[in-house]
Amino acid sequence: MQEILLGVKSGETSIQEALAQLACFPYEELGFAKIDHHRTLRRGFPEVIFGPGKTPEQVAAIAETLASNSKKVLVTKVGPAHFEAVQQRLPDARYDSVAHVIIVNRAKKAKPRPGIIVVCGGTADIPVAEEAALTAELMDNAVERSWDIGVAGMHRLLSTLPRLREAKVIVAVAGMEGALPSVVSGLVAAPVIAVPTSVGYGASFGGLAALLAMLNNCASGVSVVNIDNGFGAGYLAALINR
Amino acid sequence: MQEILLGVKSGETSIQEALAQLACFPYEELGFAKIDHHRTLRRGFPEVIFGPGKTPEQVAAIAETLASNSKKVLVTKVGPAHFEAVQQRLPDARYDSVAHVIIVNRAKKAKPRPGIIVVCGGTADIPVAEEAALTAELMDNAVERSWDIGVAGMHRLLSTLPRLREAKVIVAVAGMEGALPSVVSGLVAAPVIAVPTSVGYGASFGGLAALLAMLNNCASGVSVVNIDNGFGAGYLAALINR
Amino acid sequence: MQEILLGVKSGETSIQEALAQLACFPYEELGFAKIDHHRTLRRGFPEVIFGPGKTPEQVAAIAETLASNSKKVLVTKVGPAHFEAVQQRLPDARYDSVAHVIIVNRAKKAKPRPGIIVVCGGTADIPVAEEAALTAELMDNAVERSWDIGVAGMHRLLSTLPRLREAKVIVAVAGMEGALPSVVSGLVAAPVIAVPTSVGYGASFGGLAALLAMLNNCASGVSVVNIDNGFGAGYLAALINR
Amino acid sequence: MQEILLGVKSGETSIQEALAQLACFPYEELGFAKIDHHRTLRRGFPEVIFGPGKTPEQVAAIAETLASNSKKVLVTKVGPAHFEAVQQRLPDARYDSVAHVIIVNRAKKAKPRPGIIVVCGGTADIPVAEEAALTAELMDNAVERSWDIGVAGMHRLLSTLPRLREAKVIVAVAGMEGALPSVVSGLVAAPVIAVPTSVGYGASFGGLAALLAMLNNCASGVSVVNIDNGFGAGYLAALINR
Amino acid sequence: MQEILLGVKSGETSIQEALAQLACFPYEELGFAKIDHHRTLRRGFPEVIFGPGKTPEQVAAIAETLASNSKKVLVTKVGPAHFEAVQQRLPDARYDSVAHVIIVNRAKKAKPRPGIIVVCGGTADIPVAEEAALTAELMDNAVERSWDIGVAGMHRLLSTLPRLREAKVIVAVAGMEGALPSVVSGLVAAPVIAVPTSVGYGASFGGLAALLAMLNNCASGVSVVNIDNGFGAGYLAALINR
Amino acid sequence: MQEILLGVKSGETSIQEALAQLACFPYEELGFAKIDHHRTLRRGFPEVIFGPGKTPEQVAAIAETLASNSKKVLVTKVGPAHFEAVQQRLPDARYDSVAHVIIVNRAKKAKPRPGIIVVCGGTADIPVAEEAALTAELMDNAVERSWDIGVAGMHRLLSTLPRLREAKVIVAVAGMEGALPSVVSGLVAAPVIAVPTSVGYGASFGGLAALLAMLNNCASGVSVVNIDNGFGAGYLAALINR
Amino acid sequence: MQEILLGVKSGETSIQEALAQLACFPYEELGFAKIDHHRTLRRGFPEVIFGPGKTPEQVAAIAETLASNSKKVLVTKVGPAHFEAVQQRLPDARYDSVAHVIIVNRAKKAKPRPGIIVVCGGTADIPVAEEAALTAELMDNAVERSWDIGVAGMHRLLSTLPRLREAKVIVAVAGMEGALPSVVSGLVAAPVIAVPTSVGYGASFGGLAALLAMLNNCASGVSVVNIDNGFGAGYLAALINR
Amino acid sequence: MQEILLGVKSGETSIQEALAQLACFPYEELGFAKIDHHRTLRRGFPEVIFGPGKTPEQVAAIAETLASNSKKVLVTKVGPAHFEAVQQRLPDARYDSVAHVIIVNRAKKAKPRPGIIVVCGGTADIPVAEEAALTAELMDNAVERSWDIGVAGMHRLLSTLPRLREAKVIVAVAGMEGALPSVVSGLVAAPVIAVPTSVGYGASFGGLAALLAMLNNCASGVSVVNIDNGFGAGYLAALINR
Repeated sequence: MQEILLGVKSGETSIQEALAQLACFPYEELGFAKIDHHRTLRRGFPEVIFGPGKTPEQVAAIAETLASNSKKVLVTKVGPAHFEAVQQRLPDARYDSVAHVIIVNRAKKAKPRPGIIVVCGGTADIPVAEEAALTAELMDNAVERSWDIGVAGMHRLLSTLPRLREAKVIVAVAGMEGALPSVVSGLVAAPVIAVPTSVGYGASFGGLAALLAMLNNCASGVSVVNIDNGFGAGYLAALINR
Repeated sequence: MQEILLGVKSGETSIQEALAQLACFPYEELGFAKIDHHRTLRRGFPEVIFGPGKTPEQVAAIAETLASNSKKVLVTKVGPAHFEAVQQRLPDARYDSVAHVIIVNRAKKAKPRPGIIVVCGGTADIPVAEEAALTAELMDNAVERSWDIGVAGMHRLLSTLPRLREAKVIVAVAGMEGALPSVVSGLVAAPVIAVPTSVGYGASFGGLAALLAMLNNCASGVSVVNIDNGFGAGYLAALINR
Repeated sequence: MQEILLGVKSGETSIQEALAQLACFPYEELGFAKIDHHRTLRRGFPEVIFGPGKTPEQVAAIAETLASNSKKVLVTKVGPAHFEAVQQRLPDARYDSVAHVIIVNRAKKAKPRPGIIVVCGGTADIPVAEEAALTAELMDNAVERSWDIGVAGMHRLLSTLPRLREAKVIVAVAGMEGALPSVVSGLVAAPVIAVPTSVGYGASFGGLAALLAMLNNCASGVSVVNIDNGFGAGYLAALINR
Repeated sequence: MQEILLGVKSGETSIQEALAQLACFPYEELGFAKIDHHRTLRRGFPEVIFGPGKTPEQVAAIAETLASNSKKVLVTKVGPAHFEAVQQRLPDARYDSVAHVIIVNRAKKAKPRPGIIVVCGGTADIPVAEEAALTAELMDNAVERSWDIGVAGMHRLLSTLPRLREAKVIVAVAGMEGALPSVVSGLVAAPVIAVPTSVGYGASFGGLAALLAMLNNCASGVSVVNIDNGFGAGYLAALINR
Repeated sequence: MQEILLGVKSGETSIQEALAQLACFPYEELGFAKIDHHRTLRRGFPEVIFGPGKTPEQVAAIAETLASNSKKVLVTKVGPAHFEAVQQRLPDARYDSVAHVIIVNRAKKAKPRPGIIVVCGGTADIPVAEEAALTAELMDNAVERSWDIGVAGMHRLLSTLPRLREAKVIVAVAGMEGALPSVVSGLVAAPVIAVPTSVGYGASFGGLAALLAMLNNCASGVSVVNIDNGFGAGYLAALINR
Repeated sequence: MQEILLGVKSGETSIQEALAQLACFPYEELGFAKIDHHRTLRRGFPEVIFGPGKTPEQVAAIAETLASNSKKVLVTKVGPAHFEAVQQRLPDARYDSVAHVIIVNRAKKAKPRPGIIVVCGGTADIPVAEEAALTAELMDNAVERSWDIGVAGMHRLLSTLPRLREAKVIVAVAGMEGALPSVVSGLVAAPVIAVPTSVGYGASFGGLAALLAMLNNCASGVSVVNIDNGFGAGYLAALINR
Repeated sequence: MQEILLGVKSGETSIQEALAQLACFPYEELGFAKIDHHRTLRRGFPEVIFGPGKTPEQVAAIAETLASNSKKVLVTKVGPAHFEAVQQRLPDARYDSVAHVIIVNRAKKAKPRPGIIVVCGGTADIPVAEEAALTAELMDNAVERSWDIGVAGMHRLLSTLPRLREAKVIVAVAGMEGALPSVVSGLVAAPVIAVPTSVGYGASFGGLAALLAMLNNCASGVSVVNIDNGFGAGYLAALINR
Repeated sequence: MQEILLGVKSGETSIQEALAQLACFPYEELGFAKIDHHRTLRRGFPEVIFGPGKTPEQVAAIAETLASNSKKVLVTKVGPAHFEAVQQRLPDARYDSVAHVIIVNRAKKAKPRPGIIVVCGGTADIPVAEEAALTAELMDNAVERSWDIGVAGMHRLLSTLPRLREAKVIVAVAGMEGALPSVVSGLVAAPVIAVPTSVGYGASFGGLAALLAMLNNCASGVSVVNIDNGFGAGYLAALINR
């Protein structure tokens, strides 16, 4: 922004031009989408493509455009059809069929930063937990994992406790009654990012029960993201771990 | 109504007849539907066919009946099967596969009235936004469009700001957290019609989150239509733009 | 019922009379209430008076009528005004100002049956937990108590563990995220009766969060009663402990 | 736990080892699941596999691991595909296509303990009721059944009354308005476990109506498990019937 | 309406006048209210004043205006302050402090029509039940009453069964789990009007539990009015009993 | 019941037998269902089979059993597969593919009783409205029908007004905003049975919007049945029209 | 904005200064509030003070600050205590005790623009309707009013119809079932702003029933604002009427 | 824990003693509460007293006990009566009447760590925002504040942007539509902790609208705490800022 104004002062940039530039940080217009190339500068990570509601072709076009300006592309919550369309344009894309994400990573392998652990309550929570872990890994973190440590078998949680105590930030993923983050947080000093999942049935109401439980946790140091939002938790964990 | 009563006075119309006429403005009975031919006079636009829950045959029959009295027919939220049935009776019908609407327009091309802009937050909101835009266009408006200007990349919104400021009425379509109308309205003087969409997952609860956010917006000048109701927003925008 | 029919057979009871008797096990009509004197026989404990929505006078009249046929009277969720009205008719009634219950107990002190423990998550849950404990005690049980053992400080729960392991039935009372019963149940073999409380704020929605969490608990052996229903939990615990 | 500490005292176990042992009661790590072999000791019954969200392969692997340490395996809420995968590893597994459970039972046939009756309101509730009955039977109980005794035809309920009165614990399964447990409980002295089902339509909201009705029942002695949670009710009934 | 048109035909009424008359059946404008004097003719009973949200002065003015054209006035859900204001204008008004209604009845005592019975589940439901009974009585019905026959003590209900079987229409009022109408309807042939009440606590959610239960009742012949809407039930019962 | 007792008195029936008989009015046990043959006597119409959740075989078996004791059989909310199974056992069954009901009617054609009209708001509401109309017709009523008279085109409603004014009971079926029953009721004196439908989208929440609107209607004389419960409304209309 | 940049070009404004200016359109910092003096320019009307949650002192200070830059001040949803505090600083403020608003208007009386009508369903809706009317009047509109024209007495609505037909924009305020906007919109061509109110009880759930009904209205041309948001509707009506 | 085991090994601690110690990290039993003196070690900050549901006496006793082991005491969401009781035991306690917290701080003034900014949308959100700020300050952070920067006047937010960009962690507090965190997060790289407040009316449903909006935010890097949970946000911010 400062550069634009300096250009104005020196006369190199006309007022009209400056106004246009100020109003629009660089982005690229695809018709059905506006690609925010400025995001890496502004926020430290390129735009991430949320898959649902976009056609495979739209996802592929957005991914290709992003890849032209960024070394990393992440598409979340998509199936094989979307991957196929992306792969045709970006042959080095890979698909994680557990986490349902497409990843392109052309960055030089930095030494990953330790400090993040992702845990989940049950086997059915793994897809969301993996989405979190892969996101944080793409952001140059070394991510510990421990699956199936729900509160019904507390000793499994306790066996993970030493690793939980060493972490700088914990992502705790759980469906059903969503008690895991609360119990974990009571045992550690690090911040805990709670991810409710839609795993459950009946009065779980699509993850509402877990969500409400996590919001009402009586242990301090916990915050919550949307139901099944593994990406959001992994992204936030990476921000905190910086 | 006045004419009916004048007929009564002059004796040309019997009381019995007048009562019948008064009770029933003209409509046409199809058995499964009563076609309201009077609506163009009363409300300025012919009846619009809401597709869901009607069979292709029913939609086609209603469309044909309407077309016999009106130069314009609009069917919303239907798929290709419904279009096929309509096309057999009205060969000049066309189908928009993004907005899922069938349109018949035999009116002389009037010079479209400028003043309406339709914007949406993300790519997945486009079907609803297009439904709004096509509706307003069918009602003789020139409609500006700007897709994918959600609040997460504010500069994309700002680049659209000059066009937003020139509009007489704005339709703002958004899912997820539904913040777009609130932010837009804070920057302009024109009325904003907010359309929540069912785009999202988890605690979006089918668009409820966006709907509630829009109803609670703290910027004045905003009103809200039903979730995914692009037609309603486009129709209302046309009324306001008259 | 068999006796009624025997009377019919022997001719001592007329058909009309028998029909009337069959249709009505003994109860006493107060106009605004029908006192179910038969309940002790049928269900093992006299009718319990749920206070809310009844005037002090109504509660007192029902209590007096019950006391004429039963050695025990229990009134739940009432304040001092109701107690005063009851005390005028039943001077030996006593009021517990924490649990908000009125108790009359004229039964010979039986040796209380051990096996029940009532625990709660936080200090604010005590009124509901006491309602449960006092109910079970009135039903001739010796009740253990341990307050403030919420999952945020797991060691407090663990210190109660030996007593939890010895119990035949556990009542676990908790508000906020309601994780206590789930965690307790994972550590013991006895059935756990979960009581959500309305303690909390914001997204606790009057106890809904705790209720849903408890219903979705992933530990088996847990069942749930209404929000703040200490009486129901204590009553059920006594049934199970028989 | 005591043994571990004794080992420490005698010097046979190093501190490091003891800490590790204390933190982790025996379980087996499958990567996607941690098998809790300790549960039979701690809770009296092996871990039960909740099917939804697990792949057939995952279920089969967990079942095989459990079967290596336990004579009984129970998998709930699964279809034929899961059964096929399990059967390949555990040929003596059997599948109940009404209750949607897989059962392995290699225990010596103990004389089943009487005392449990499972009843349901309508034919559509049978799958959930059978899940409850089969669970309790696997836990060595003789289970009475009476289907289709909903409150709309009270005499059908009354005809079951003698068996209800003899039971030590009753499981009452009902959808729609969920009145069955309340009516049953008013007629008996035994504890009633209420299971709401998702049977119904419209304002049943997936079982919410039945759930709320059961939580608000005005008869004492009733507790509630999650919607469609037949397993939980059967398990709890077995605990109470011990 | 026919008279208006006849006046037009004969020339006695001008077109302008007729239009005005047609558009407005007689009512009286009070500024804050429009009194519908035509309602007795159109609907068989004068307009009823719903009290909440109206000041005592407004209620009194509306009541006085209604009383000038009708022999009966009914005001529902008001307290003593409203009654005082009404009594100053209509000294023969009387107030029922249980049902919270004001009644003026200057009609000649017709022999009341039998056929209606109002029953309720518990003592706390009486105010709503009385509102129903008093409404039906004001509409010239003899109303039977039976209070406190909730399903937890089924014999109390059964003792009322003969009277229920003789009724032409039954009003069944209940809070908490709202099972009464369902059970009653299963035993009789007459239509049952179900009135959920806000009596209860916790997961009753202000009567929602009872409302949902009643809507989902599996006995046919039941319909439901709003929570606590005793008036509506009594009014409807009178319509059916005509 | 009286006969049973008379048998006891005369000695023809033993006490044991009488008890058994009293407890069980006649029904037939099918294992998965108990057929209530007593219902026609008790309630005036045979048991009706609610289809959802029952297999075609179960529905066919229940239908056959009912048909052996009753001249009329009604199955609601089923598809062609269920009809096929029923037809194999009851060849004179017929299927209405709009209302999704199976009907067997072997009763002598009585002269149908006039007095019932069923109306609906839109074409998509017809299946529910037909379910109501067919039910009332099976119960020997002549049923008037008027479809598609929603409040958005009031003159269509007004054209039906004369027929509405002549009816003894009105069934008003509507989805979306559910305003039809309220408007209809304000114009007539007869009772109105309101049927909300699940027709709509977005904030209709599966019919919740229409349901709430109908429950809150400010016109008296309206009661409500479950969402999409055409059968319940038709049944109740027939009861009222007797 | 353009001026700021021109200042930069000419050298009169330093870069630092320009950045600061660009980032902050003029507002005034009160510590607990930032007064947006720029709003009249940007949006055509000064900032409006939403009262709830602000102390009388805070409201008075904000009002005084606004009044120093604007000829009009509007405070909504406040009581007499807030008015008293405002009046001490702005003696020409006036309070409307029906609408609960404080108004300061020092603008020269412009000839008010006709075109807006505000109608409401019942007497209890008047406070919200007046809030709408007063807001539009303060924005230089002549506002028609018609209270108590709910759909239960349709002729009262019809008598207002001529005025409704002449309006350019209609504000329709209603609680309970919220049918008024839908019915009104079906009869006119102008846009209708629907305002649900919290008037009602039971299943009105604080206005939710009316809100949902209005969102699902089947008449086109309707949009909705928040429950009880008279201000928002009046403001929007004024925008549309410009 | 390690020390306990070492004591066991050396023989200084008996097994029984060790078991007791292991099961119970140090806490102090007050009867109605168990004071967790171990928390500072385990979690880095002493236990915080949540006020609601505790009597003044209980709060004072807990505060005194905590103060005997810790240099800092924090009590949240209490009024003056609670403060008075605390002050009698801890004369150096101070009360913040905006944030409704009691604070005791006897720690040596450390140089506060910069990096946290707390912002809020409107004046009515200040109490919650202050609760967050005071909590973080008590945990040795220097906290920036900027109140009343809601999205309706975007320039106020932009004027705070430089400070937002410098922060290491941002707490964004907002009621009504809750859009602030989403907009803020789109402009910065730091993690944003979103706090919905119960500020609003109508369809805000006690903060639910803001909560859902924040959970569904489309900007990454945001997590959410309970409605009105300023303390939780401040605590978490301090953890992240370490």
